[in-house]
Amino acid sequence: MSYSSNLLEMLQRLGAAEGDHIEVRSEGRDYAGILMPHHQFSHPDVLIIKLDSGYNIGIRMGPSSEITAVQKADVRERGPRASSENKGLPLVAVLGTGGTIASYVDYRTGAVHPALYADSLMAAVPEIADICDVQADVLFSKFSEDMTVEDWQNIAGEVADRLNSGVEGVIVPHGTDTMGYTSAAISFMLGDIPRPVVITGAQRSSDRPSSDAYTNLISAARFIVNSDAAEVVVLMHDSSSDTSAAVHRATKVRKMHASRRDAFHSINAPLVARVDFEGEIEHLSPCRKRSDVKVVPRLEMEKNVSLLQYYPGMSHSMFEKVLSENRGVVIAGTGLGHTSSELFGAIRRAVASGTFVVMTSQCLYGGVNLNVYATGRDLLSAGVISGEDMLPETAYVKLMWVLGQTDDDEEVRRLMTSNLRGEITTRREMQ
Amino acid sequence: MSYSSNLLEMLQRLGAAEGDHIEVRSEGRDYAGILMPHHQFSHPDVLIIKLDSGYNIGIRMGPSSEITAVQKADVRERGPRASSENKGLPLVAVLGTGGTIASYVDYRTGAVHPALYADSLMAAVPEIADICDVQADVLFSKFSEDMTVEDWQNIAGEVADRLNSGVEGVIVPHGTDTMGYTSAAISFMLGDIPRPVVITGAQRSSDRPSSDAYTNLISAARFIVNSDAAEVVVLMHDSSSDTSAAVHRATKVRKMHASRRDAFHSINAPLVARVDFEGEIEHLSPCRKRSDVKVVPRLEMEKNVSLLQYYPGMSHSMFEKVLSENRGVVIAGTGLGHTSSELFGAIRRAVASGTFVVMTSQCLYGGVNLNVYATGRDLLSAGVISGEDMLPETAYVKLMWVLGQTDDDEEVRRLMTSNLRGEITTRREMQ
Repeated sequence: MSYSSNLLEMLQRLGAAEGDHIEVRSEGRDYAGILMPHHQFSHPDVLIIKLDSGYNIGIRMGPSSEITAVQKADVRERGPRASSENKGLPLVAVLGTGGTIASYVDYRTGAVHPALYADSLMAAVPEIADICDVQADVLFSKFSEDMTVEDWQNIAGEVADRLNSGVEGVIVPHGTDTMGYTSAAISFMLGDIPRPVVITGAQRSSDRPSSDAYTNLISAARFIVNSDAAEVVVLMHDSSSDTSAAVHRATKVRKMHASRRDAFHSINAPLVARVDFEGEIEHLSPCRKRSDVKVVPRLEMEKNVSLLQYYPGMSHSMFEKVLSENRGVVIAGTGLGHTSSELFGAIRRAVASGTFVVMTSQCLYGGVNLNVYATGRDLLSAGVISGEDMLPETAYVKLMWVLGQTDDDEEVRRLMTSNLRGEITTRREMQ
Repeated sequence: MSYSSNLLEMLQRLGAAEGDHIEVRSEGRDYAGILMPHHQFSHPDVLIIKLDSGYNIGIRMGPSSEITAVQKADVRERGPRASSENKGLPLVAVLGTGGTIASYVDYRTGAVHPALYADSLMAAVPEIADICDVQADVLFSKFSEDMTVEDWQNIAGEVADRLNSGVEGVIVPHGTDTMGYTSAAISFMLGDIPRPVVITGAQRSSDRPSSDAYTNLISAARFIVNSDAAEVVVLMHDSSSDTSAAVHRATKVRKMHASRRDAFHSINAPLVARVDFEGEIEHLSPCRKRSDVKVVPRLEMEKNVSLLQYYPGMSHSMFEKVLSENRGVVIAGTGLGHTSSELFGAIRRAVASGTFVVMTSQCLYGGVNLNVYATGRDLLSAGVISGEDMLPETAYVKLMWVLGQTDDDEEVRRLMTSNLRGEITTRREMQ
């Protein structure tokens, strides 16, 4: 389903899409047939073509391979960038990355296909042109479970460029599966921003009557045009009552249901705002205001970081191996932040040899408190860093980012325990 | 904080507790002093003694070591088993395992200590004697983050003995951190049972005004005496409104808050019942009824099983290593049960070489559905077993248990996808 950026660029340049008849030259041989959907198991540089004989073949597109002709299946124009008519409305950038929100269903096969083009991304929501002028690009087209750290860096860099070019805000349509990881990463990478960045998606594709794609995109545009916020947020369907969208802080949001439209919840934090489907915005917690700051993205990430949930029966040797082989490890411990005391030796040895170990809670709600029980105090004395009320996933992304910024032991500890992007809520909900 | 069962038995036999003056002979040397609280970092066979000189020492108690004298700090009788006066009320067995519910605070030091004796376990709840006759034992005294698979087997075996001896039910006071893992394990191990088994705990120790220890123990006794259920359940504080206790199915319950009393939630399932603090029981979902069945515990567990949450940036080599080195792996995937397609090769190889891979969702709420997206269909074709709407932790415990019962590939797949103890809810909440 996902193409390499090189191959995607070639397809976009030529306006080629699934269903088109194309001719290809690769390694001295010529092929002709219908461009088929890319298969998950296929290499991202492979094109699948249904030959005139009826057989499907995969063609690995090397550096010298090229698409020599495209006969479009329909007459719609396709370009790498789409802009709505310039009506003098605030300009909003849309950076497509894939996912259900940017997919459509092929009624012949029943398969879900990604929108590879900015115009197909926006075609489902023509009403957005009444709210803002749109400058749309497709960065890539991936299910979000395929996102990589490089994709986060790519998105953050492109968002920074758009913000620095003076747009009123940026919408990032994104798959929902790993949206919370991406939103946290972008939030840490971008730092101070002058205008809002809204990551949004859909739990139901736009061909379904209950799709949330339309309302989420419209609400994202309204939030950018009508709110005075300047943070990275996640906007998703608010509740099954179908009247509003919820705006979550990028570092506090988690997908808490596999299929419901109101799957996203702010954990240990209030919502930033609610945008009702009439367009009214209700601000629900303080947030950073708009400014003229220039974005200085800091994209470096330490990739040698792991996230581990502790559970009874966990292999001690596996645990010790992960701790010793990583520069940072986030543990999702039990309760207030515990592991078996039998693992303390391994933790002490890892910390002494330079591994940063951050403790969070697999309960998700509530915070780590390493001062209540002896277990916690012993973990603290072993050098474990308290993740406070950070989500395990947010602590994982933050630790990668912090270790990408500094090598200094004290600075790592200071940053991990400081509230940088709303990821640590100081108020403790103890009752 | 935790002693080996040998050492605990010796302490119980002699009635020795923290604060008592004891004399010890070990490896030809004699020691005398005050018995101190056991330290987390200490070996479970080590006694800590404050010598008359004021120094603390640790004494490793080998097979030939013994406690030669005990001078009790107070006059209270201590025995390994405590029974309430026999009033002809239904007989309920209480099997202490430790945790906050069985701990008390030393006001001199502020430290939380475990109750090592059945009488101190029950002393805080004298009113229980008006509901039932009690036969109390302390199996061991551990914080629940220190629980092991052997502890689950020990508890299940003892519970089976009590049930087969004809008691009206069994209460298992337990630490809350890993209560959901233990409850699932006991539920799978025991199978059909004639009377209810209620695992309960406390989020606040009994010295605190808002402690839930008292109401949870009383409600557990009332549920056993007044309900007609015969399942393994978890009973914990229902909501912060302080009016009832919630009874959860053992395989569907998860600790969802680090500190609140109403931390336990039934995920993807209704409550079994609610017990209000006046004693009224409201049954909320069908459950197995009482019978005269004899319990045939099946305690075997395959320990070579791991639980892994998938996240973007996960090390491919670590993932492949865990899959290749375990007999079973439960993945907490994203959304409807996904991982990066880059890991499919490793999954296919692991399944082909005999590893059982079960997919669950890190969303917790909602179920895995591997038929919606190509990612899921490819995982199915790679041989991944759908965990349906099982909690990742329950699927982990179940896979250990299933692999402990059978080596047959088809039988493992059949059992993992069958609803054995209410762990799979057939009704899909798709809206």
